[in-house]
Amino acid sequence: MANAPSPPFHESVERYFRELQNTICRALELADGTATFREDLWQHPSGGGGATRVMERGTLIEKGGVNFSSVTSQLSSALAAKMHVPAQEIVATGISLVLHPASPMAPTVHMNARYLRLESGDAWFGGGTDLTPWYLFEEDARHFHRTLKAACDTHDPSSYAKFKHWCDEYFFIRHRGETRGVGGVFFDYVRGEPDRTFAFVRALGDAFLPAYLPILERRRSEPWGPEEKRWQRIRRGRYVEFNLVYDRGTLFGLETNGRTESILMSLPPEAAWEYDHEPPAGSREAALITVLRQSQTWI
Amino acid sequence: MANAPSPPFHESVERYFRELQNTICRALELADGTATFREDLWQHPSGGGGATRVMERGTLIEKGGVNFSSVTSQLSSALAAKMHVPAQEIVATGISLVLHPASPMAPTVHMNARYLRLESGDAWFGGGTDLTPWYLFEEDARHFHRTLKAACDTHDPSSYAKFKHWCDEYFFIRHRGETRGVGGVFFDYVRGEPDRTFAFVRALGDAFLPAYLPILERRRSEPWGPEEKRWQRIRRGRYVEFNLVYDRGTLFGLETNGRTESILMSLPPEAAWEYDHEPPAGSREAALITVLRQSQTWI
Repeated sequence: MANAPSPPFHESVERYFRELQNTICRALELADGTATFREDLWQHPSGGGGATRVMERGTLIEKGGVNFSSVTSQLSSALAAKMHVPAQEIVATGISLVLHPASPMAPTVHMNARYLRLESGDAWFGGGTDLTPWYLFEEDARHFHRTLKAACDTHDPSSYAKFKHWCDEYFFIRHRGETRGVGGVFFDYVRGEPDRTFAFVRALGDAFLPAYLPILERRRSEPWGPEEKRWQRIRRGRYVEFNLVYDRGTLFGLETNGRTESILMSLPPEAAWEYDHEPPAGSREAALITVLRQSQTWI
Repeated sequence: MANAPSPPFHESVERYFRELQNTICRALELADGTATFREDLWQHPSGGGGATRVMERGTLIEKGGVNFSSVTSQLSSALAAKMHVPAQEIVATGISLVLHPASPMAPTVHMNARYLRLESGDAWFGGGTDLTPWYLFEEDARHFHRTLKAACDTHDPSSYAKFKHWCDEYFFIRHRGETRGVGGVFFDYVRGEPDRTFAFVRALGDAFLPAYLPILERRRSEPWGPEEKRWQRIRRGRYVEFNLVYDRGTLFGLETNGRTESILMSLPPEAAWEYDHEPPAGSREAALITVLRQSQTWI
């Protein structure tokens, strides 16, 4: 089955993800104005491959990766057991991005959309996007959520609430008692009618740039100094903790011998760990933590 | 059973770990000459607690932690299943240290010794120590291993080879195909005759300072600049990857609601991730990688 032609539906999903990668990379290069994406094409040992695009040391983006992949692999019995299915072949195609802006005033963002298909024929979509500010600008969180809600509403007016809640639960750093950031939407194992679900995934994918770019622009000239950069590094440490301890996509990739550099492009350019760092009461840094410690309503 | 008095053997193990913490901290403060350890006493929600000592921004030690703990907790059914025992109470006491020197020429070091006792009465020792250089000085690796071998030999002349091999297997960053460093010794589930095993653990604990301090002193005046510091940060990123993805002690601590700041004191003060960083062929940085990619004999 590894070399069997993909069904037309699968191909159109793949084509959309590739086009989205192009659109997003072009827009980011324009916004950044200095750095450009470098592309690495790679092959997976068990079939398929991907195109990893990374931008480093830009004016706005200190490090950013936008990955496309389409990989065939064999579910190990351990992974299959976790997914409550027999061990078999799995085909996964998706786009995955993480952008780490240079300015501590601009939030880090993640977006992912994927389509998985088992040898058994079972297939589903998953994905999501979440915003991780280091300093809280409520209007940024509201703009991000409002844009995502509008995309969700085109699909099902109840979906935003459900996927927003799922996002808060998923991007939770249990050992810190904090969410990774101000959330967004997250969904997995969405089966439903394929064309309709795909339309929803496209709506969300297309919403990424309008949800994030205005925030990046808005924070472009916000002043900051070494103390804000230090705080950003400490908080980026929390981002690393989430990705390496809890993120299912990262661990799935590492366990299935995915391309390490493509999986770990999500890690920040720099991170710091200071023992028992606590921002002073009443500070902007402390205000962020308060917000991350209990679920917020942004709309 | 949580409040039952500890058996005398358990108490003497605990006392040794506390004394070792004192001895090591005093020696490190003397060696550093600037920074001193700050101590935080803490209690575990389910019983017991610990003393975490951390030193930051020293002349030699950029960040170092030396923890003592003695904790009673309930094994979750998931953890019990992993350990192939029924869910029950577990008492764990131990010392755990990680030192991150400021100079990229001086290696990071880890040491841990622990004694675990199940409600069922089953009890065992575990522990080990390993060295993680950023630049390879073969005489440092040899000195470290030679000192550990001498300590092992007092116990059982075959133990060094066994525990050295176990260390290479344990401190392996699978997704990078690299060991964390040049190894040392690692052991777990060592039951045997309690007094004899404890004597072995003491021999290894007492070997820590003679194994590491001379290396720290020897690299004190080795010159380095921003490029070496950058390399150290990149390699420290690999250290983070190991600790958060694979280290059983770290994951066990986080899963059993251990004190996060005490568990994660092992993380470096700063780390960096550059996309697909490869040191130039023939460089000192490339020479290190070569050594980490296949098991070495140091004695």
